[in-house]
Amino acid sequence: MDFTPSPRAQEYTERVRAFIETEIAPVEEEHLRGLLAASPDERWRTYPVIEELKAKAREAGLWNLFMPDVSGLGNVDYAPLAELMGRSFIAAEIFNCNAPDTGNMEVLQHFGSDEQKKRWLEPLMAGEIRSAFCMTEPGVASSDATTMEATAAIEGDEVVLNGRKWFSTGLGDPRCEVLLFLGLTDPGAERYRQHSIVAVPRNTPGVDVERMLPVMGRYDEPSGHGEVSFTGVRLPLSAIVGGAGKGFEIGQSRLGPGRVHHCMRLIGLAEVALEAACRRGVERTAFRKPLVNLGGNRERIADARIAINQARLLVLHTAWLLDTQGVLGALSQVSQIKVAVPLMTQNVVDMAMQLHGGAGLTDDFPLSAAWTVARALRLADGPDEVHRGVVARLELTQYGMRR
Amino acid sequence: MDFTPSPRAQEYTERVRAFIETEIAPVEEEHLRGLLAASPDERWRTYPVIEELKAKAREAGLWNLFMPDVSGLGNVDYAPLAELMGRSFIAAEIFNCNAPDTGNMEVLQHFGSDEQKKRWLEPLMAGEIRSAFCMTEPGVASSDATTMEATAAIEGDEVVLNGRKWFSTGLGDPRCEVLLFLGLTDPGAERYRQHSIVAVPRNTPGVDVERMLPVMGRYDEPSGHGEVSFTGVRLPLSAIVGGAGKGFEIGQSRLGPGRVHHCMRLIGLAEVALEAACRRGVERTAFRKPLVNLGGNRERIADARIAINQARLLVLHTAWLLDTQGVLGALSQVSQIKVAVPLMTQNVVDMAMQLHGGAGLTDDFPLSAAWTVARALRLADGPDEVHRGVVARLELTQYGMRR
Amino acid sequence: MDFTPSPRAQEYTERVRAFIETEIAPVEEEHLRGLLAASPDERWRTYPVIEELKAKAREAGLWNLFMPDVSGLGNVDYAPLAELMGRSFIAAEIFNCNAPDTGNMEVLQHFGSDEQKKRWLEPLMAGEIRSAFCMTEPGVASSDATTMEATAAIEGDEVVLNGRKWFSTGLGDPRCEVLLFLGLTDPGAERYRQHSIVAVPRNTPGVDVERMLPVMGRYDEPSGHGEVSFTGVRLPLSAIVGGAGKGFEIGQSRLGPGRVHHCMRLIGLAEVALEAACRRGVERTAFRKPLVNLGGNRERIADARIAINQARLLVLHTAWLLDTQGVLGALSQVSQIKVAVPLMTQNVVDMAMQLHGGAGLTDDFPLSAAWTVARALRLADGPDEVHRGVVARLELTQYGMRR
Amino acid sequence: MDFTPSPRAQEYTERVRAFIETEIAPVEEEHLRGLLAASPDERWRTYPVIEELKAKAREAGLWNLFMPDVSGLGNVDYAPLAELMGRSFIAAEIFNCNAPDTGNMEVLQHFGSDEQKKRWLEPLMAGEIRSAFCMTEPGVASSDATTMEATAAIEGDEVVLNGRKWFSTGLGDPRCEVLLFLGLTDPGAERYRQHSIVAVPRNTPGVDVERMLPVMGRYDEPSGHGEVSFTGVRLPLSAIVGGAGKGFEIGQSRLGPGRVHHCMRLIGLAEVALEAACRRGVERTAFRKPLVNLGGNRERIADARIAINQARLLVLHTAWLLDTQGVLGALSQVSQIKVAVPLMTQNVVDMAMQLHGGAGLTDDFPLSAAWTVARALRLADGPDEVHRGVVARLELTQYGMRR
Repeated sequence: MDFTPSPRAQEYTERVRAFIETEIAPVEEEHLRGLLAASPDERWRTYPVIEELKAKAREAGLWNLFMPDVSGLGNVDYAPLAELMGRSFIAAEIFNCNAPDTGNMEVLQHFGSDEQKKRWLEPLMAGEIRSAFCMTEPGVASSDATTMEATAAIEGDEVVLNGRKWFSTGLGDPRCEVLLFLGLTDPGAERYRQHSIVAVPRNTPGVDVERMLPVMGRYDEPSGHGEVSFTGVRLPLSAIVGGAGKGFEIGQSRLGPGRVHHCMRLIGLAEVALEAACRRGVERTAFRKPLVNLGGNRERIADARIAINQARLLVLHTAWLLDTQGVLGALSQVSQIKVAVPLMTQNVVDMAMQLHGGAGLTDDFPLSAAWTVARALRLADGPDEVHRGVVARLELTQYGMRR
Repeated sequence: MDFTPSPRAQEYTERVRAFIETEIAPVEEEHLRGLLAASPDERWRTYPVIEELKAKAREAGLWNLFMPDVSGLGNVDYAPLAELMGRSFIAAEIFNCNAPDTGNMEVLQHFGSDEQKKRWLEPLMAGEIRSAFCMTEPGVASSDATTMEATAAIEGDEVVLNGRKWFSTGLGDPRCEVLLFLGLTDPGAERYRQHSIVAVPRNTPGVDVERMLPVMGRYDEPSGHGEVSFTGVRLPLSAIVGGAGKGFEIGQSRLGPGRVHHCMRLIGLAEVALEAACRRGVERTAFRKPLVNLGGNRERIADARIAINQARLLVLHTAWLLDTQGVLGALSQVSQIKVAVPLMTQNVVDMAMQLHGGAGLTDDFPLSAAWTVARALRLADGPDEVHRGVVARLELTQYGMRR
Repeated sequence: MDFTPSPRAQEYTERVRAFIETEIAPVEEEHLRGLLAASPDERWRTYPVIEELKAKAREAGLWNLFMPDVSGLGNVDYAPLAELMGRSFIAAEIFNCNAPDTGNMEVLQHFGSDEQKKRWLEPLMAGEIRSAFCMTEPGVASSDATTMEATAAIEGDEVVLNGRKWFSTGLGDPRCEVLLFLGLTDPGAERYRQHSIVAVPRNTPGVDVERMLPVMGRYDEPSGHGEVSFTGVRLPLSAIVGGAGKGFEIGQSRLGPGRVHHCMRLIGLAEVALEAACRRGVERTAFRKPLVNLGGNRERIADARIAINQARLLVLHTAWLLDTQGVLGALSQVSQIKVAVPLMTQNVVDMAMQLHGGAGLTDDFPLSAAWTVARALRLADGPDEVHRGVVARLELTQYGMRR
Repeated sequence: MDFTPSPRAQEYTERVRAFIETEIAPVEEEHLRGLLAASPDERWRTYPVIEELKAKAREAGLWNLFMPDVSGLGNVDYAPLAELMGRSFIAAEIFNCNAPDTGNMEVLQHFGSDEQKKRWLEPLMAGEIRSAFCMTEPGVASSDATTMEATAAIEGDEVVLNGRKWFSTGLGDPRCEVLLFLGLTDPGAERYRQHSIVAVPRNTPGVDVERMLPVMGRYDEPSGHGEVSFTGVRLPLSAIVGGAGKGFEIGQSRLGPGRVHHCMRLIGLAEVALEAACRRGVERTAFRKPLVNLGGNRERIADARIAINQARLLVLHTAWLLDTQGVLGALSQVSQIKVAVPLMTQNVVDMAMQLHGGAGLTDDFPLSAAWTVARALRLADGPDEVHRGVVARLELTQYGMRR
């Protein structure tokens, strides 16, 4: 059980840390403030400062590091990079390591045809376009995949898409050009061979973005989360990724490393919140004492430190299992971190908000936005409760329970 | 210990319930949807539907019921009315029972001069204008009143205000015409005789609303929470409410009943959330079962029911103590409900959001907005931690601790 | 919703309080110390001090107050008496108000034949004998009554008992002379008409106390909790209480008031623990401060106060519902207090233990024993989880769920 | 960050696992049952089965493995061994790896004179005698060492001990022959140079074991926890360990590895509890379902799995820090595991008890005893709250707080 990153990874870590410190940190706050100051309708655009930083990162070779084939980094190696990126709201994009593009790129790389790679993977890896993943549906409990209503029916040499998806992250971005759509192709096939993934050009007739969704009142411009309908969307069979009926297999493959990335970024976010809590608690005074010396505040800080450390180690262990035993050797852990990390981050951020008083609820500190990120991730990829069910099922298998 | 509302109160309760059902409920959702659909800048306005409903409520005699002198209702009597109003985001305003106007009206009624009553109290009670209460400051920990920096200095026959306030709720409302400002008048006086409350016309020179504050990303238009600076604001001495140095005494007097109102409204909100959770849990299906039959969902619903019931009883007990023994007989309880109720509501709403999946985070359900209300009230009127300190201090007094 | 005890009840409350203070408190600690100092085998006996106190209480008319027909007290009336008794480990017995005798006396009074009343109820009410209730079985999950394995078969003019029961509280008491046994009589009858209750003389052939059970290492001498086998125990049909097939109906009837008694006693116990915590926290010093001024201790004390107050109000409300609407009007609440109160008490006691350091774990303070009482009551009468299920079921009925 | 045990450690782990399985497990239950069946007074003795197992373990070279000089094992190496031993209530003694002897042996080895080593260390390492550590005092808050009242005064060529200690674990063991006593020698010296450790033969005049202490009603025979007075106990100066005034330095040195041992054993215990919960939950049925399929039970099992995994990783990380950076590099973590692990174990065991129904509270399962172990360790070595204070202090140092 060795969580030591490779020398190559350690070097990348130092370079990413330095890049964030010298290039991103100095402009991030102003960028976000500007974005929030704009009228909401005007936020859905590209921002030159982001594009410039992306160009610099790309030039520096700090680009697509999430992808093992590019960076030579395994999950244990990449984890500290993800944590560093998670401390910023924009760094992941700047290093071209942001969801959902990362997962989509992996899908295209492993399962895409040459044509799909040329058309979608190359510009994605170049950071020229963005993408969305359209799986969750508003009308059903999407954590139970058998309830999916959207269809990807094969008619002759075409695949025809119908259905409604939501929480399609990235859909609001003007650069979003491709949607990976998951739909039912063959209800008669065996349970996990019924669905297909189709790469849908954003501007295909029948694809209508109905609205962008607020998440706890925020729209996360400019990428956002969209509700989108597909009405008789016709594409050639060559738009299917990896072959008809492979939807689930591909969808599952996205999850392991993706969850490690998410969770490590959340740990970075929790660290930012704890730092803010400490700083505020030391600097601000009430009743003639620094806040940290009032009531249970020190105990809260200690509990946060302990919770963050435990969560990080659990993610690193999951990363190590993925590296050494593959997804099948990490099934329980991949669900465990889904349960443990967003909730931990939510709690640490909530504590930090409380220590900031009213200011903690405003956008003067990154806490309110951080809370929303953590809260949303208790539902994204399936609610925590479903993942607790997975962990329990795998545990109980050892005692003869069949399901 | 009798929590039975008077017959008069029971009659009001039925009439308020009916009014909400027949007049408010049918239009509320559309009104809120319209508000959210508008561009944020355009939300800070009056809404005809609201004004019409107010006129109807006033005509029906369901108006200013919070005020014992008007309605003849004590705290125990009023509590169920507040719970009913809390089930809606607009009802309190429609019955002219909304904070901070309620507290401000009480202050003006009990401590205001005839002139102040005529100028401010009458139009407030008529629902023609609105008001703000300016106490909290951005630069200090406002739960420790001795740190207050704003000043209300007496110079000759004028009082001169300087300082910066924030979280002045209601300040964004175009109808907001008067600000009750709390400032330091005499640093040499004894501790609780140093501050004064001044009634400040909204358009007085030197009063500058610097910005409206987002709370978890929401601005709560059209009333909102403002940050406002007072720069050499000069007013005649007659603008002081209740006499110089009476600021704290007056400020404290607002708190008891106000907290009962807040908490009962939150209980109404928690009931709404629990109802939503039950409805969703019964109607939506996953893994071939209604959601309530999955994992720990039933236990969560039970825990929510138990928590709400306990919280309501604690508030009713506090109301009864206020009615029978006055504020001094309810000091601990007034802090106890501050600690217990917003946190309970936050947790119940969080549970309900989780049961709704992604939808729970959107504005398609009232849960996300409800969560924000509850979260904010863990800080408003002083953070929970300060109130735990009050409860502990009063408890420990019995064991000889002096502070 | 009026929780005010009747004048009669208030008078009793004062007299019980005085009796505890002047008669019981002065000798309780020494009695318990003596009991613990004895060799365990020698603890299963009668204690003169207890019998003398019982005689005094009986003489004073503070006797069998739990029984409405005797005392004229309803549940709301009796609740404060139960809380007072719960502050002591022996008071309930001294006032002849201790479980399981209370429930057994109620059963015999309401359902017993004249013969049963003469033989068992009279000496029980006189405090001359004690009793046990034999329902729970070691081999099955007894919260699901349909799994019960013990039988009470009718053969001619005899009822024949077979089976094994455990957690039969009171079985170790040398004065225990009658066992109320619940067994399956007619598996073909409808679900809740299959079982019978039989009054079994303790020394009937075939009744074998296999062992006394430790609960968290304690045997609760001299009453204790027994495991007892019934092997071909033959009794005349007249030993059946209330008629064959009435077992469930009778068993259920014991529960409502009994649960109010248990819970109010636990609230008394929680108050004792909080008092101990406050006293220790004020008197003992570390790092040059009283313990209450270290870390989060004051917040813990506040949270305990709030939790106790909420729990008490919930029990009082349940008592009031029982008084005004009967068991059917309090079904959910009777389960709610089962969930809320023992857990609350366990947590308050745990907090108090922690504040006492190592001493809190010893028998120098009543905390360790109190913890065990609370912990056991999270399982007695069915595990909390089952009662959460009941609360949820009743809640969801309103939304159309059938079970 | 490499938590991989050395090949040598892995081999030991397999051998210890096999020894427990083939030698200890088959007899442990019967041994414990016999112990509990005996009259309490007769439990304070040696047990042939234990001595025989010790002889076998010694012969097999599975002996004193906790001691790096003997086994060549670092903390990371030893951790899995401690976890295995923690699954049994007797294994640690059988491998001569049980507290407090382990810590005492380390003290004597590193700081003892040749004479002390010959007289005490050798028979301890041979498993022929046992020892106690006398630090905690009944009259003061011992987590604040400056309050210690016991004295170890130097008078000429003698050291004279006075004072009262309690929670001296091991003191009840008939084989206990030496007490390491911590007392105040020089109140004028600097803060951490005032105390001395003295090796006191058990039978020295003036040493009186006043009583053995119950912990949650249990005495943990035959080792137990004693209260012991020292009255004018005179010993030659050569009885001082490591020199006068070195008491604190030595006491601190015991803590790091000792805490890793304790915590890993607790993790073993938590695993035993989770296994019991799973087994019971799968095998026992209620309402026609296995218990694990009722209510929130699966979620509880998942949460337990996640909590155990996180706790283990935190301890392994602490072990690794101790191995690579020494005690000073692991100060925060050594306190972090003190806070996290006993509480986690307590909670997991409580969950398992609840799933067992009444049986979980008896001694038919190891859960009740396991709970007591975990609960006691939330106080042993200082209450959790003190350690939260340490973690917070170290965290806040980075933000300029001095204490």
